[in-house]
Amino acid sequence: MTAPVFEWPIRVYWEDTDAGGIVFYANYLRFFERARTEWLRSLGLGQQALCDEHGGMFVVADVSLKYLKPARLDDRLRATVRLTEAGRASLAVHQQVWLDGPDGTTTLLCEGQVRAGWVSHRSLKTMRIPAAVLQLVGAA
Amino acid sequence: MTAPVFEWPIRVYWEDTDAGGIVFYANYLRFFERARTEWLRSLGLGQQALCDEHGGMFVVADVSLKYLKPARLDDRLRATVRLTEAGRASLAVHQQVWLDGPDGTTTLLCEGQVRAGWVSHRSLKTMRIPAAVLQLVGAA
Amino acid sequence: MTAPVFEWPIRVYWEDTDAGGIVFYANYLRFFERARTEWLRSLGLGQQALCDEHGGMFVVADVSLKYLKPARLDDRLRATVRLTEAGRASLAVHQQVWLDGPDGTTTLLCEGQVRAGWVSHRSLKTMRIPAAVLQLVGAA
Amino acid sequence: MTAPVFEWPIRVYWEDTDAGGIVFYANYLRFFERARTEWLRSLGLGQQALCDEHGGMFVVADVSLKYLKPARLDDRLRATVRLTEAGRASLAVHQQVWLDGPDGTTTLLCEGQVRAGWVSHRSLKTMRIPAAVLQLVGAA
Repeated sequence: MTAPVFEWPIRVYWEDTDAGGIVFYANYLRFFERARTEWLRSLGLGQQALCDEHGGMFVVADVSLKYLKPARLDDRLRATVRLTEAGRASLAVHQQVWLDGPDGTTTLLCEGQVRAGWVSHRSLKTMRIPAAVLQLVGAA
Repeated sequence: MTAPVFEWPIRVYWEDTDAGGIVFYANYLRFFERARTEWLRSLGLGQQALCDEHGGMFVVADVSLKYLKPARLDDRLRATVRLTEAGRASLAVHQQVWLDGPDGTTTLLCEGQVRAGWVSHRSLKTMRIPAAVLQLVGAA
Repeated sequence: MTAPVFEWPIRVYWEDTDAGGIVFYANYLRFFERARTEWLRSLGLGQQALCDEHGGMFVVADVSLKYLKPARLDDRLRATVRLTEAGRASLAVHQQVWLDGPDGTTTLLCEGQVRAGWVSHRSLKTMRIPAAVLQLVGAA
Repeated sequence: MTAPVFEWPIRVYWEDTDAGGIVFYANYLRFFERARTEWLRSLGLGQQALCDEHGGMFVVADVSLKYLKPARLDDRLRATVRLTEAGRASLAVHQQVWLDGPDGTTTLLCEGQVRAGWVSHRSLKTMRIPAAVLQLVGAA
């Protein structure tokens, strides 16, 4: 049984592109992050609130991603998140960025894995993810 | 009598450009900020240290800038800072970005004014700039 | 008689903030640009299409902005655009960023003027704005 | 026999940090890119010139990276590049980001692999890397 897929729309603006005429490769990590943030928010987990209440935050520990096709200015994208692992101190998700073409086609542009650990906001040391957070994530 | 001009070299990377083939307009504010940070550092004012010692930080209050010519990938730029006003709670500087061409020419690309206020790191409320800071800036 | 105000929602993500805990000052220019792009799109003016058809693009010529209050992670903002001047070769707009608080309040965070000229995509030289573009903008 | 390691200094500015007080995870890809660009430049390979002469450019195909320790405002970093594979249509490099502490210590913050393919500037289709480029890279 696999976890449901969360989707978040992204529009490509000038700020996202580079002189090659395409989205700069680092910016897919911004898109991934927005989708993870909205996924958590959809579960009732606002990150500013989490930090205020639990004194912790998610920090990315590792990333691997493949760039399959480029995105361009004005493109309509969809970034996805699917939970693949929920451990005591970290979550792993599979993420994709899709292009929704004007002709109704949909094309996978980029995909990868992201693992984020839960750390103290002050010391940045790894901590156990609060049970309430894990429950909401697992309940997804 | 005018204050001396501080200069800081900037190289244009892919990250700075957009699909128009030129440096994205917001990124000149990043260049300006780097030059202000290095100007302060050259006066012995590291901003992380300032925050740790005085509990305050500079936050930009207003900006005006003109874009005269575009910069492109691989261009060698120079960002400048010249103090124009040091008040109790804010500093104003004049800043420019110059292109140093491969042929020895130098061209003004962008210039403007930036005013930064001194605020509490916690409350973000305006405070008086610490005397030690003003002295070092004024000594420039 | 003043032009209508176009509004575009913006959410503050980690990418927008800095170590001061607030939105980095240059990023308001990203927000402003998104709102201008969506305003043009709402008038039927996609910028990639404009470039393909007319060989031109808008490039910002000058900016002035005031930062009144900071925005923070997870904040819900609204960026606005109001046309203030449509010339032969440039457009001027007044733009604002508002915070929509969780308590129903709305607070002006940042505002300014932006003037963008129309230039050749290849030569980057100033050109007259295509009549069709001016008509759609003026019709707003 | 391993390829030599190229190093490039990076300073952490406000623009690089996020509200967690540390460098935003996507920005390590900006640091990696700067180091690759300077590595190529050190071999006589300016990317704008490459594009003008050969009509091609390097585009990242895949990335994997691990974040070991966070970087903070004002930190002095070093980004490295070491060629691990030079194929007909792509190059692979191993990259690291090191922190040079004020106390003389040096700490590995982030490391990973990046593979970049050579594509046509116009069509973005994969092409064979020009022999002259491969020779200079291999000569490293």
